[in-house]
Amino acid sequence: MDQIKLEEVLSSVKKGELSVNEALKRLKSLPFENLGFARLDLHRDLRQGLPEVVFCQNKTPEQIITIMERLWEHHDHVLGTRLSPEAASNVQKGLPQALYDPISRLLRLSRGERPLPEDDAPFGMVISGGTSDQPVAEEAAMTLEFLGSRVIRAYDIGVSGVHRLLDQHALLTEADVIISVAGMEGALTSVVGGLVSCPVVGVPTSVGYGANFQGVAALLAMLNACAPGIAVVNIDNGFGAAVYAHSILRRINK
Amino acid sequence: MDQIKLEEVLSSVKKGELSVNEALKRLKSLPFENLGFARLDLHRDLRQGLPEVVFCQNKTPEQIITIMERLWEHHDHVLGTRLSPEAASNVQKGLPQALYDPISRLLRLSRGERPLPEDDAPFGMVISGGTSDQPVAEEAAMTLEFLGSRVIRAYDIGVSGVHRLLDQHALLTEADVIISVAGMEGALTSVVGGLVSCPVVGVPTSVGYGANFQGVAALLAMLNACAPGIAVVNIDNGFGAAVYAHSILRRINK
Amino acid sequence: MDQIKLEEVLSSVKKGELSVNEALKRLKSLPFENLGFARLDLHRDLRQGLPEVVFCQNKTPEQIITIMERLWEHHDHVLGTRLSPEAASNVQKGLPQALYDPISRLLRLSRGERPLPEDDAPFGMVISGGTSDQPVAEEAAMTLEFLGSRVIRAYDIGVSGVHRLLDQHALLTEADVIISVAGMEGALTSVVGGLVSCPVVGVPTSVGYGANFQGVAALLAMLNACAPGIAVVNIDNGFGAAVYAHSILRRINK
Amino acid sequence: MDQIKLEEVLSSVKKGELSVNEALKRLKSLPFENLGFARLDLHRDLRQGLPEVVFCQNKTPEQIITIMERLWEHHDHVLGTRLSPEAASNVQKGLPQALYDPISRLLRLSRGERPLPEDDAPFGMVISGGTSDQPVAEEAAMTLEFLGSRVIRAYDIGVSGVHRLLDQHALLTEADVIISVAGMEGALTSVVGGLVSCPVVGVPTSVGYGANFQGVAALLAMLNACAPGIAVVNIDNGFGAAVYAHSILRRINK
Amino acid sequence: MDQIKLEEVLSSVKKGELSVNEALKRLKSLPFENLGFARLDLHRDLRQGLPEVVFCQNKTPEQIITIMERLWEHHDHVLGTRLSPEAASNVQKGLPQALYDPISRLLRLSRGERPLPEDDAPFGMVISGGTSDQPVAEEAAMTLEFLGSRVIRAYDIGVSGVHRLLDQHALLTEADVIISVAGMEGALTSVVGGLVSCPVVGVPTSVGYGANFQGVAALLAMLNACAPGIAVVNIDNGFGAAVYAHSILRRINK
Amino acid sequence: MDQIKLEEVLSSVKKGELSVNEALKRLKSLPFENLGFARLDLHRDLRQGLPEVVFCQNKTPEQIITIMERLWEHHDHVLGTRLSPEAASNVQKGLPQALYDPISRLLRLSRGERPLPEDDAPFGMVISGGTSDQPVAEEAAMTLEFLGSRVIRAYDIGVSGVHRLLDQHALLTEADVIISVAGMEGALTSVVGGLVSCPVVGVPTSVGYGANFQGVAALLAMLNACAPGIAVVNIDNGFGAAVYAHSILRRINK
Amino acid sequence: MDQIKLEEVLSSVKKGELSVNEALKRLKSLPFENLGFARLDLHRDLRQGLPEVVFCQNKTPEQIITIMERLWEHHDHVLGTRLSPEAASNVQKGLPQALYDPISRLLRLSRGERPLPEDDAPFGMVISGGTSDQPVAEEAAMTLEFLGSRVIRAYDIGVSGVHRLLDQHALLTEADVIISVAGMEGALTSVVGGLVSCPVVGVPTSVGYGANFQGVAALLAMLNACAPGIAVVNIDNGFGAAVYAHSILRRINK
Amino acid sequence: MDQIKLEEVLSSVKKGELSVNEALKRLKSLPFENLGFARLDLHRDLRQGLPEVVFCQNKTPEQIITIMERLWEHHDHVLGTRLSPEAASNVQKGLPQALYDPISRLLRLSRGERPLPEDDAPFGMVISGGTSDQPVAEEAAMTLEFLGSRVIRAYDIGVSGVHRLLDQHALLTEADVIISVAGMEGALTSVVGGLVSCPVVGVPTSVGYGANFQGVAALLAMLNACAPGIAVVNIDNGFGAAVYAHSILRRINK
Repeated sequence: MDQIKLEEVLSSVKKGELSVNEALKRLKSLPFENLGFARLDLHRDLRQGLPEVVFCQNKTPEQIITIMERLWEHHDHVLGTRLSPEAASNVQKGLPQALYDPISRLLRLSRGERPLPEDDAPFGMVISGGTSDQPVAEEAAMTLEFLGSRVIRAYDIGVSGVHRLLDQHALLTEADVIISVAGMEGALTSVVGGLVSCPVVGVPTSVGYGANFQGVAALLAMLNACAPGIAVVNIDNGFGAAVYAHSILRRINK
Repeated sequence: MDQIKLEEVLSSVKKGELSVNEALKRLKSLPFENLGFARLDLHRDLRQGLPEVVFCQNKTPEQIITIMERLWEHHDHVLGTRLSPEAASNVQKGLPQALYDPISRLLRLSRGERPLPEDDAPFGMVISGGTSDQPVAEEAAMTLEFLGSRVIRAYDIGVSGVHRLLDQHALLTEADVIISVAGMEGALTSVVGGLVSCPVVGVPTSVGYGANFQGVAALLAMLNACAPGIAVVNIDNGFGAAVYAHSILRRINK
Repeated sequence: MDQIKLEEVLSSVKKGELSVNEALKRLKSLPFENLGFARLDLHRDLRQGLPEVVFCQNKTPEQIITIMERLWEHHDHVLGTRLSPEAASNVQKGLPQALYDPISRLLRLSRGERPLPEDDAPFGMVISGGTSDQPVAEEAAMTLEFLGSRVIRAYDIGVSGVHRLLDQHALLTEADVIISVAGMEGALTSVVGGLVSCPVVGVPTSVGYGANFQGVAALLAMLNACAPGIAVVNIDNGFGAAVYAHSILRRINK
Repeated sequence: MDQIKLEEVLSSVKKGELSVNEALKRLKSLPFENLGFARLDLHRDLRQGLPEVVFCQNKTPEQIITIMERLWEHHDHVLGTRLSPEAASNVQKGLPQALYDPISRLLRLSRGERPLPEDDAPFGMVISGGTSDQPVAEEAAMTLEFLGSRVIRAYDIGVSGVHRLLDQHALLTEADVIISVAGMEGALTSVVGGLVSCPVVGVPTSVGYGANFQGVAALLAMLNACAPGIAVVNIDNGFGAAVYAHSILRRINK
Repeated sequence: MDQIKLEEVLSSVKKGELSVNEALKRLKSLPFENLGFARLDLHRDLRQGLPEVVFCQNKTPEQIITIMERLWEHHDHVLGTRLSPEAASNVQKGLPQALYDPISRLLRLSRGERPLPEDDAPFGMVISGGTSDQPVAEEAAMTLEFLGSRVIRAYDIGVSGVHRLLDQHALLTEADVIISVAGMEGALTSVVGGLVSCPVVGVPTSVGYGANFQGVAALLAMLNACAPGIAVVNIDNGFGAAVYAHSILRRINK
Repeated sequence: MDQIKLEEVLSSVKKGELSVNEALKRLKSLPFENLGFARLDLHRDLRQGLPEVVFCQNKTPEQIITIMERLWEHHDHVLGTRLSPEAASNVQKGLPQALYDPISRLLRLSRGERPLPEDDAPFGMVISGGTSDQPVAEEAAMTLEFLGSRVIRAYDIGVSGVHRLLDQHALLTEADVIISVAGMEGALTSVVGGLVSCPVVGVPTSVGYGANFQGVAALLAMLNACAPGIAVVNIDNGFGAAVYAHSILRRINK
Repeated sequence: MDQIKLEEVLSSVKKGELSVNEALKRLKSLPFENLGFARLDLHRDLRQGLPEVVFCQNKTPEQIITIMERLWEHHDHVLGTRLSPEAASNVQKGLPQALYDPISRLLRLSRGERPLPEDDAPFGMVISGGTSDQPVAEEAAMTLEFLGSRVIRAYDIGVSGVHRLLDQHALLTEADVIISVAGMEGALTSVVGGLVSCPVVGVPTSVGYGANFQGVAALLAMLNACAPGIAVVNIDNGFGAAVYAHSILRRINK
Repeated sequence: MDQIKLEEVLSSVKKGELSVNEALKRLKSLPFENLGFARLDLHRDLRQGLPEVVFCQNKTPEQIITIMERLWEHHDHVLGTRLSPEAASNVQKGLPQALYDPISRLLRLSRGERPLPEDDAPFGMVISGGTSDQPVAEEAAMTLEFLGSRVIRAYDIGVSGVHRLLDQHALLTEADVIISVAGMEGALTSVVGGLVSCPVVGVPTSVGYGANFQGVAALLAMLNACAPGIAVVNIDNGFGAAVYAHSILRRINK
């Protein structure tokens, strides 16, 4: 219908019955969604160079294989997150080229290697408090690497032994963004927030028990940190923290 | 910039350098938001005939007067919700034509009368449990009337005396939509939901104390009602329930 | 006992010992429940044409078979909800004529076909954000179909890519009622509520993790939606949303 | 030590070195707990005629057998609560005389029969909303019987069909205490509380899903019931409700 | 309308056109609510001898006076609860015969004296932990007296000095029902529940601060008491506890 | 009554009718509470040397004066806690000898000076994060002094500047008990817990806003601290922390 | 003491009694905190060029003046946040050179002007949903300006009218960081997160009522946003969001 | 780098180019972390004589064996906590010398015996309410023994039979610290806190059901205890309570 109206306008212009200015004015008065115009891909910028990502938790291996295969046809890099070792080995039967890391629980499909970041590129630092926080920390670190950013890790530097944290002070102050992964009381993020001037992305983890409430204690602690310069993602969301940190590092490169 | 591209396309058509078909194809490839086209008013339908509404709670009388005056210039019906008597009398000093109802806490500005609904028009019924729920019930009922819908009220029919509710049975089964306003344990809505087949809009109120948690007990009760056919709006949200009921009644009229 | 009293009154009338007026007065003084009168079936209207429904979650296959068999004797349409594939295959051993859909987790028993709705009948639209919300969305859509309503589905149109939602704009504005199924932050329902003027039934799902709290985040978001015209059912309650939407669509048909 | 002091006082009295009055005064100045006096069994009254009770949930069959055997040596009636069918069949291997009821999940050991209550004894009524509430309702009813009280059951009388409840009106008003067991939104208890003048013991159950929060919705509803005359026990605590009701019925008997 | 039908049936019986049996059958087929029969006052029993009660919190003095005057015309005893001293003195200007007690915050209107209970009547005991719990305790005690029950008070017997509680042991074991009012951690109710065999009505109060959450800590403690024989009313609900206790004491009298 | 029984036993002993052994046996069979013995003051030990304490929050100046005057008659040291400056100045009109400190909100009545602790006595350290935590910190510190313990203060050493905390390292490791007062995210307590080996008493404060939930964030953080050696009191409970620390320091002195 | 040890080492080196290598080894064995060395100012970097900030909420005007005067002696830029108009006018009596903005509730003291950012400098965009969110949005925007960053504002673009948001699409995709301020259901942040590739700082506000729970609904929504690239600060924390955004923008400048 | 600076300073001193005083001044101006000095082991004191501890919950047997073997190389005492019997028997295959206790779920590795505490050493008392609390109580008691402290146990002394608690009164008043382990309503800790003057460490357990919320009810009760002298650790944290009690007992010994 509007297709027709558009044709009419153009034909009138062609025939000289309508000036260019008048045609412009008429076109502007048509609501866009009826024009049959190209769908605006609002995500073009966001997805530039990013791999496709599948959140695998609560999906069956069959579902994961189906989704990944479809993406794999059109993309060179596909990432699966939150995949248990059992599910992963089932998925790998259907997708033998997939690489799985049991700590970060990430599964990757890649055609060709992604270029490594320069040695002096801006870098994100991923720090964590206890060994139980490592899966989330690795999810963040490996995702950041997969996105093409430079990463430095410093694990097991919880506040119950604050000297271990201070040992990393020089490195922390050089980082361009820090992903601070912490369960229990989440104090690591607060203390780090007071030591550095770069943005800190807090990732509360569900590590703990009792009044920890599956990560709520750490989440609240980070949201209430005295030090400004801290923002927080969802509990156990290492992937989201990595995408966030990457969105900062990309800006510094430009 | 895209303005220019558009002009170029039209000029080329005018000059005969570009066929209408080719021009159509090119236009469709341009993302809409850069065309400078008319902004699509997605709300046109929703707002047809509806008054403008101002949520007055936490606004100063000065702010309310300023906002209402601006709306009043371009609209024939303006409604203010959640206005305390003190605030209302201050607002009325600046807007003497405004009418205020102290129970529903609504303030109205109207040019001319809205036509009354027919006597046999589909109708919404607004019911409530206790006298303390009346402000929210009246907010719903008067908003519904203001929107042009037919309303029947039945207050003070709480479940602690279930016979009062049963007395209204005939009317309840005739209603086209019921707004059930209840505080305390909110059981009125559950019981009504089991008596009728029309949609019931539950409005939990913050009436109560202690383990009522400002309406949370009633909210949870309504969300968990055994009887299907109940949907719920926010605590004390009589206005929202009225808009919802009106959106149903309008459909029945068409 | 009261049966006897009633007989006495009638006999006295018959014998001329009691005037009609006096008899009327006496009858009115008897409480209804002792009269042995016909039990008023308050649900007659609600159940007209509706299938019987069994909530199967937390029931054993044996319990489900027993209940369904009893209903099946007296009704032509029986619906079981929330049935896992394992339980379903056990139930089907006892009820081989039962049809099971593994996505919606619905099990149906039907004698004869229900008439299909007209092509231009009022329709409900079921929309959902992510693929993980699909079981709940399908529970809603298939229940709505089973109840005899016309349904249009539009899945995977979450707000993280708002253009996918806008692509459905024309259809959304034509719908008579929309069931909006969304987990995570539940923003789909808010955005849709701002695009349309028909009633929107929000169904928060328990999809998500961490600070999602099994659907509470989505539930709260929908209850607090800025756009009026949204009412909410319990988390994951696709069935309830369908009954609600059906109660609206039926009214439009009449 | 104080034993010795006490002996000294008594010896001095015997020898005439101490008057009775003076001895009395000295005795009163000794703190009781050092006197080695008979331990006051504060529970004597409470336990009179009551069976011993073992809360079996989270205990292994071995632990249950050990505890029950020990009690069984000294008591004629032992009751185990919250016992799964699997655990029960294991316990019965060690205690073959134990009787198990799979619905109430109660296991009983009894020497001889307990006398049945008179037909016109005060009675407790146990009512429940849906079939899923039956395990808790039966825990209450059977415990009440085991304690020797007269019980009348009325199940499946939820508020979504309020006429089923009204059918029981005569019986409800005759009851001396009512145990009202309800999950979902718990409205049954509120409505019953408005129909009767006897004490109502509300038992919220964890039946439901989503915003039910494992019985919290029903618990809050009962605590906020408009009708006075309702008191509440913990979620799913059918046993506690029975002991409570029994403590009321016993008083009426005396 | 149905009135007319009923008359027709009776007239036909009178005229001999209809047998008694046939008339009976026809009457039974009419739904009760259309018969124009006497409305069943389901509350008759509950309200026998009870005063009318007005919950005054959040009502203006004007509203309270209006409601009380209306009740006062038809009843000899009217009770207002939760009335602040300021509101009370305003209400007393309009209702000079009203008596106000500033501790329990109760306001009474009575024509003539209610008869006092016998000295050996069954009695309720009202106990409380700290002086701050006294307003709620007195609300319970005075309401119980107003309802005509015998009351014994024992205040300031909190568990932080358990000997004060044990001093009351003899009295506690004689009570027919105990209302245990406690804020802070609410342990008084638990300990008393272990000392007695009569029903205990727990009233958590909002006394406390911090992690007390306005009485939630005490509420949870009472719901989780190890000792059976405890049921709980809403936070600060001294009035409800009194009505509950009275419903028990009345049964013992009968 | 039991008084009489006791006299009988003693008289029989006196008369030689009863041997001492037999008398002992009989006495032991009497339940203590009927003996009329001296009430055991279980609190004697706890209160030795401690001042009497009145929690003044939510009490009127009149109530405070009445309670304090009564205590002041029998005790040399009376402490009032949580007293606003306004209330304090009213109380001082009635009790002119009372000393008030506006920061800790403590009011003291003392006859004579309490002896100061030795310079090398075991000491408690009171530390706090921000200036807003000072009222709670001072409540703890001044109460500890009032109880006769040695106190060292170190305020404004929050984790957002961890070097300020490390500056106090030497002192912290010498302390015998540390009271760590912190609002916001409460991380100070965690970090200190990792630095020292003495017991740390955590006092979360309600300082903060938003997702702090009036101190809940800090409370949860402290309960979940990675470092063992931390125990927690209620939010803002500086007084309780002081009593706790004093109970430790007293033991070290003995 | 360690001062002395250090002198001894140096003297020994001077005298040739100790080789440089040996001295180095000895020095390294001394723990740092005893050396009397310069305190490491870990915050140097963070505070470079930043103004001093005072959180004024819950402080008296006197306290604010005292703190600000002290800071003002040593710093050229002092910022006070969360200051009510009343408090501000009192503070300005003591500090007449202070500038106050009633919308953002910020109070500033500045010696000389801060240089303005270049027109093509990286910029932060501050967006908000409703007019009630404006105070928090302005706190963020004005703080960002005060810190020297370039800011573009776009207010009143809530999701209930998603076209208003799309109108800003071009600007949004150019921003280097976005501060998204939203109350109610907080969906604005989710939708924006799906439109852009730069980091988004979500600021939930406490605007709303009922089941909004003072901003918790918006907070949870933002934490659960489907779109990655969102991190969240505390409810109403516009200041913290600005510091965070500035820490990103500074990195891009370098 | 700073290593080099340090060498230069020392060389200059050696060569006489720099006075000792000047060298001192220069050294003090270097930030410590760049000096390459010995890392300060802030934990030295805390760990003196303490065994190494591994929190085993949520770790695989393989992980536990790896971590324990590494610790076992360098330490004489290694403790594993929260180890299920299944996991323990797997761990013991790899570490045959490990001793496991199935009640406390502790696993120990020890070279040589730890010296037993003296018979009159200060002692901690571990008390618990019900048999279900015993695992947590034993975790506390056995950890305390492992740390070398003297322990006395008194289990099964819950408040539902307060006389059992009073029987332990003498022992309780002699204890130097009490660990009070209680689930359900946690009232044991409150009552004990009112009986003694030593510090009480409350350990809420997750024992209970329904409105217990996995230990939250007991936790809140303990935090709100009327009796001062109580501090609380996390739910089920018997280990933490033991370390805390040990930190107190060690002080008394010194």
